[in-house]
Amino acid sequence: MLKNLTCAQLKRMTLKELLALSEEIRETITSTVLKNGGHLSSNLGMVELTVALYYVFDFPKDKLVFDVGHQCYTHKLLSGRFEDFSSLRQRGGVSGFPKREESNYDCYNTGHAGTSVSAALGIAKARDIKGEDFSVIAVIGDGSFNNGLVYEAFNSLRLLNTNILLILNDNGLSIAPTVGSMHEYLEILSEDFAHNEKKDRHAKIFERFGFAYDGVYDGNNLEEMIKKLTEVKDRLQTESVILHVITKKGKGYAFCEDDPESTHGISIKKTDSVSMEYSQTLGKKLTALAEKDKRIVAVTAAMTSSLGLSDFFEKFPKRSVDVGICEEHATVLCASMAAEGLKPYYAVYSTFLQRSYDEILIDICSQNLPVTLCVDRAGVSGADGETHQGVFDLSFLSMIPNLVIAVPKDVNEFERMIEFSTVLNGPLAIRYPRECKRIFRKQTEIRLGEWEKICEGDGKYAILACGERALSQSLAAAEHLAEHNIKAAVINARFVKPLDNRLLDSLTEKYILTVEDNALIGGFGTLIDTYFASKDKIIKNFAYADKFIPHGGVNELMKEFGVSAQAIADYITTNEIG
Amino acid sequence: MLKNLTCAQLKRMTLKELLALSEEIRETITSTVLKNGGHLSSNLGMVELTVALYYVFDFPKDKLVFDVGHQCYTHKLLSGRFEDFSSLRQRGGVSGFPKREESNYDCYNTGHAGTSVSAALGIAKARDIKGEDFSVIAVIGDGSFNNGLVYEAFNSLRLLNTNILLILNDNGLSIAPTVGSMHEYLEILSEDFAHNEKKDRHAKIFERFGFAYDGVYDGNNLEEMIKKLTEVKDRLQTESVILHVITKKGKGYAFCEDDPESTHGISIKKTDSVSMEYSQTLGKKLTALAEKDKRIVAVTAAMTSSLGLSDFFEKFPKRSVDVGICEEHATVLCASMAAEGLKPYYAVYSTFLQRSYDEILIDICSQNLPVTLCVDRAGVSGADGETHQGVFDLSFLSMIPNLVIAVPKDVNEFERMIEFSTVLNGPLAIRYPRECKRIFRKQTEIRLGEWEKICEGDGKYAILACGERALSQSLAAAEHLAEHNIKAAVINARFVKPLDNRLLDSLTEKYILTVEDNALIGGFGTLIDTYFASKDKIIKNFAYADKFIPHGGVNELMKEFGVSAQAIADYITTNEIG
Repeated sequence: MLKNLTCAQLKRMTLKELLALSEEIRETITSTVLKNGGHLSSNLGMVELTVALYYVFDFPKDKLVFDVGHQCYTHKLLSGRFEDFSSLRQRGGVSGFPKREESNYDCYNTGHAGTSVSAALGIAKARDIKGEDFSVIAVIGDGSFNNGLVYEAFNSLRLLNTNILLILNDNGLSIAPTVGSMHEYLEILSEDFAHNEKKDRHAKIFERFGFAYDGVYDGNNLEEMIKKLTEVKDRLQTESVILHVITKKGKGYAFCEDDPESTHGISIKKTDSVSMEYSQTLGKKLTALAEKDKRIVAVTAAMTSSLGLSDFFEKFPKRSVDVGICEEHATVLCASMAAEGLKPYYAVYSTFLQRSYDEILIDICSQNLPVTLCVDRAGVSGADGETHQGVFDLSFLSMIPNLVIAVPKDVNEFERMIEFSTVLNGPLAIRYPRECKRIFRKQTEIRLGEWEKICEGDGKYAILACGERALSQSLAAAEHLAEHNIKAAVINARFVKPLDNRLLDSLTEKYILTVEDNALIGGFGTLIDTYFASKDKIIKNFAYADKFIPHGGVNELMKEFGVSAQAIADYITTNEIG
Repeated sequence: MLKNLTCAQLKRMTLKELLALSEEIRETITSTVLKNGGHLSSNLGMVELTVALYYVFDFPKDKLVFDVGHQCYTHKLLSGRFEDFSSLRQRGGVSGFPKREESNYDCYNTGHAGTSVSAALGIAKARDIKGEDFSVIAVIGDGSFNNGLVYEAFNSLRLLNTNILLILNDNGLSIAPTVGSMHEYLEILSEDFAHNEKKDRHAKIFERFGFAYDGVYDGNNLEEMIKKLTEVKDRLQTESVILHVITKKGKGYAFCEDDPESTHGISIKKTDSVSMEYSQTLGKKLTALAEKDKRIVAVTAAMTSSLGLSDFFEKFPKRSVDVGICEEHATVLCASMAAEGLKPYYAVYSTFLQRSYDEILIDICSQNLPVTLCVDRAGVSGADGETHQGVFDLSFLSMIPNLVIAVPKDVNEFERMIEFSTVLNGPLAIRYPRECKRIFRKQTEIRLGEWEKICEGDGKYAILACGERALSQSLAAAEHLAEHNIKAAVINARFVKPLDNRLLDSLTEKYILTVEDNALIGGFGTLIDTYFASKDKIIKNFAYADKFIPHGGVNELMKEFGVSAQAIADYITTNEIG
């Protein structure tokens, strides 16, 4: 049925047909995600809700904003993207997130949590200013609902004097189970549904902020959803409504319903990949150190397991905090615990670290407090696309005074950097990609700002490589060049800050190449450009071009956006010929 | 009485003595602030509350965190800093904000809104982990209470399983009157006090999050404050308490009570300063443009007047939004209104722009939406110190793809940049300091990425100056050098992004100097370093050293931290001699 289905056709379907359509959607999502990777459980939970929205509202005239956006697959299938859906998350294919560039049904791009209510309010406000008439709907999960941005939007609802429909898709899970008092409150509300009590008995909080409150106890019951949305649609002319919908994450597939956490996101493992992940090393090492060092505490924002910290949390529950999707709060908690003599480790994906930029700068670094930022999924992160690439962290961290920035060449070096962090009495960021694909035999002691020479050259070219991926591309280039009798020195530039001035000063090579898995502007290479700005050197930077990097495979994106062994080798060979 | 007063002595005072002490504090604050500048009204409102805290609690054993921190003057006077208080906000003197470096009574540095609840929770959690015993108190104003970070902290109170006292200092004002539903809610609660009704009738929201709620209707009544705090202190052993205290901003001085907005912060005007402020230009120009261009909307976060937008807000109330101290929400509102075809201007201080770094990157720039960021108080901002210097914006903005960054040489050029913004169909940041001190006679048309040659040189040195202050220092240096028969070219590098490649390529000078009112790392100069990294040029960057810049005078700080005519001239003359 999905093939060539138009919104108009969907609206003419019977309930029976819509139910069959839902099953087809569920099957399409499951088979595609198992093939391409992607978000599974969250999308399975959203099928009926989305079909009902399409039945009741008129897209793209009405506007639909998805918080985070990973739950938009049904929406994509219903808005003319069924044919292309098999290319989900592949370079050039359908994105796993809403993309204005992809369809006019996608009215606002998302990727990070908590923006949907603000965005829906902005769209509704613009509608009012322009004197237009359509409905604006935001769909937010109970995990995102913890984020402070949502509170800020709530606080301004009356002030903005506009109407939206906010659908709170409550499945009790962020990626891990949702935590916090708001979540407990939502449970009380859903208990009311369960016992068929008056729905607004406890709903005063939302009403204080200007929302009328309503709910659907079984959001996977299509008939019930359609009925309620039809009712609510009329009310939007005069008021904003929050519709609390209980859905089942992973709905329809036992293996997802039973384990929604590990089926939240499905990765497709390549057979040639090394299985070691940096997150596992973090968890193992930190747990071992915490046995002896009672100052160590671990803080996460709703991603404990993906960051490798499940065991730590189990072993040291009193010294572990998962605050939910509240990156700013997590950062201030770390700073304040450090101010009291503890040694906090805040583990977070590079892309989500952006959320607490101000708190890293002001709370942690201007107070020079010994917090360690464990920056996971740094560099190109692949199939999730623009909003999830970890390619900016070196750029937004390097100008912060007092902060030390370390980048390991492999998991063993990472382990020793964690050891090093315990004796460093100031703020430290360690950034690393997801997977470690190569373990170096030689390991040297970690000293503040000290780099490591990996191989000697013949005195003309020195390659300064920052991090595992950069080093790996640099060594491949060096090997290729060696076949042409050019010996380039390769250096593991494992501290981005401070730089190894002694080693830099000792470089006699005329040509200095820098390589990193980060944006060019503000990154490692530009620190080297500045270092040699008044010296007689020729510097060439290999880093990502000044563009947002879309979804695709890690290796293909690195190559396409400027960081590859090929590009390094080409530069040198062209230079030799020229 | 204040001189040599110890906390122990204060605790032995009678009420009458404490009242006299309060008066002395009030006089000291007023006379000092009128002399040195600083926060007046907010500190006058806090006198009795702070004296009562010192009477009841044991500092520094107990810990006191001030949200934002500008209201800490009484605390400073009572914690051994009376003698030094006359140096308030002067280089080397007492800071206007809490500073751990200054006293062990300052347990946590603040400066930006909303961090105090998180910080108090972190300190309390650390206390519990270490098995220590003391009270943790946060004082937060009703303006900061709008910030999303507070909600994130509330949401985790039960989760963290620790106890704090949160004093909500409610004077109905941020700098401007506080806005939003939370504020309306606080008004309902304070109405209850006024009519002596049962205080917790409406307090369910706070209780949902795990706080017991109590209040004091007149927080400037010392006796009442002491009584209530004494009661509450005992309860902290078993629960967290939010104490809602109504105070009068500017208390005790009619001119402050009547006009707390303009007496919130007092600036000391130097007689030689030009009175023109960039903010006035913004307001005037934007109001004029908005008459014809119906797409234009203005958004601020609780600082409408300081940003020059009062008239705009009055004239176009439907196209104006002040969301309170909610920088992230303000940013997403702008992005989403732009997505619907409007032309939003988000005016904000450079230092507070840090709060929405992620939303600038993801919501505005990755969607390439035509939002204009009007970045006020950029560069060294002076007497407020580390947490308020606007010296990082070029560094944290320049790596964001799609963003254009413009820096005017004076208010006239700023005006034409605002005109330019109306035709640019993408994100733009314009950054400028508070005051314009020099108006250039010659003005040239603004074209994307095009710089302006201010004066020609004799072919050896070219100075690329970014923004009014840098240009002013550069021209002073050039004049000085001319006396020694060295003619340096001076260029108004008014776009940081994109750079003027054509002009850069045409430079025949061997020595290129860059000057900016921003941190060196990641700033304008480093873009030039990278541009010339493989060319035969000698580049010297004048920008701020990699340190947090403390409070002091703008000119003295610029000089001390590396940006001055003297330093530029010295570099060139030394080079000539060498």
